[in-house]
Amino acid sequence: MKLAMIQDKIVPFEELEPIYLDRGIYFGDGVYEVVRSYNGTIFSLEDHLQRFANSLAGINIEGVDINLIRGRVRKAFEAAGISNARIYFHITRGSAAREHDWNSNLKPNFLLTVTEAPDDTEAKSKGIAVSTHPDWRWKRCDIKSLNLLPNVLARHDAAQKGCDEAVFVDEAGLITEGAASAFFTINGQTVQTAPLTANILPSITRKFAIEAAKNIELKVIEKSLTPRQASNSDELFIAVTTKDIVPVVKFDGKIIGDGKPGKYTKLLVEEFRSFTT
Amino acid sequence: MKLAMIQDKIVPFEELEPIYLDRGIYFGDGVYEVVRSYNGTIFSLEDHLQRFANSLAGINIEGVDINLIRGRVRKAFEAAGISNARIYFHITRGSAAREHDWNSNLKPNFLLTVTEAPDDTEAKSKGIAVSTHPDWRWKRCDIKSLNLLPNVLARHDAAQKGCDEAVFVDEAGLITEGAASAFFTINGQTVQTAPLTANILPSITRKFAIEAAKNIELKVIEKSLTPRQASNSDELFIAVTTKDIVPVVKFDGKIIGDGKPGKYTKLLVEEFRSFTT
Repeated sequence: MKLAMIQDKIVPFEELEPIYLDRGIYFGDGVYEVVRSYNGTIFSLEDHLQRFANSLAGINIEGVDINLIRGRVRKAFEAAGISNARIYFHITRGSAAREHDWNSNLKPNFLLTVTEAPDDTEAKSKGIAVSTHPDWRWKRCDIKSLNLLPNVLARHDAAQKGCDEAVFVDEAGLITEGAASAFFTINGQTVQTAPLTANILPSITRKFAIEAAKNIELKVIEKSLTPRQASNSDELFIAVTTKDIVPVVKFDGKIIGDGKPGKYTKLLVEEFRSFTT
Repeated sequence: MKLAMIQDKIVPFEELEPIYLDRGIYFGDGVYEVVRSYNGTIFSLEDHLQRFANSLAGINIEGVDINLIRGRVRKAFEAAGISNARIYFHITRGSAAREHDWNSNLKPNFLLTVTEAPDDTEAKSKGIAVSTHPDWRWKRCDIKSLNLLPNVLARHDAAQKGCDEAVFVDEAGLITEGAASAFFTINGQTVQTAPLTANILPSITRKFAIEAAKNIELKVIEKSLTPRQASNSDELFIAVTTKDIVPVVKFDGKIIGDGKPGKYTKLLVEEFRSFTT
């Protein structure tokens, strides 16, 4: 008789709840988004829904109605009544007995959570420390998938070193991005970040950070850089949905500038704020 | 109020069952094994348990008692009473609100299923077709992790082409392994397969296939090869836990040999059978 075992408990296979057969667990076969709200308004939801649609298409999950997803996000956000919220949602390909290839009539599974956005006051005022880690991720990081083990391991490594974020360095010795953020340098009046490729997530906060930089008359270059170039920069920052622009004041142990958030980074934080109010 | 939404249903966050917070879903933060039995006896369980321990250590999941896992596997296998069984089990780091880094006091989640092993009669007698796919996987494929989306996509691509398995080709143009198997060529009396590196799973069936080859006086070379070399080979086969040695008779559309399982491959299938009886 086919059966399953959950911890020590044996159950007939047919009685397993669908969540235990979710392809999200067996394969990470799904995609996700994180959006946040500022003072009761979700920021840039349409950009996130568009990227979500791209991620779904990227792994051939078909038939998901984005209007339905938008409705669920808004309904859950309103029900939660959290002014500065972090909204996470994912769709997996569905639940089925484990086989690599999928049956085209699977029904996707949707899960969403609404929680408080993290308090970024200290990170913004004092800046954070980052450390580098080899970029072990798969070759389609433009798809925001549930295959995040390399990100988890890199973030853990960073935490062990007293750092708040890990910055990935690829085999060519170039910085790609953070484990959960885009990464930027500022030198003189030039902001630099890696160009969008199949190895980089098309970060929405990255897009707005570039817009903010242009608004305050900074030059923006999309070109990869090395850890040495980063650590010798005037200023560093990361861009992430849940905290938007966060100054980086230490890179692999090296103090950046005077160890405090840089002047242009602070201007970018201010400019970004204008997008969200 | 923090909340979650499952499909269209809103539930208080605190009432979410732990499985909905499993890090296996959010990050693929876990490792797995597949073992099979032949005629009522589990094949090479100790090798699989050792590899499972290595995978757990590889992603820093600590405190798992392998003796406990062995006991669960045996108990479930006996309860199922399936003579030729496929036993799948995984451990994830545990259930918690989604954060990349983990809390060290998480309790790992264990899941196991016992089902019938697939019938390999036709695959063994007629051979299978394979197609190549770029190796998009992460850089630690020596760890048998739940981050399997590239394998899923490659296997789907193969199925679309009428093939049973995808063979990964890395950026250097070299074959690494199959999406769920080890890959071998035979030329003259020489069997060849890629060497074990961080990009290759230390396949247990691979180990026994090499042993079988040596037993029948074939030479074995562990050296990477190109798709062209593979398609020009006398014989091809894959090695996979659930079906052990399976002849490959078509490679990217090209017929191998006379389109039937090769003579040495058939001898290897026979020799492998001696390990399992």
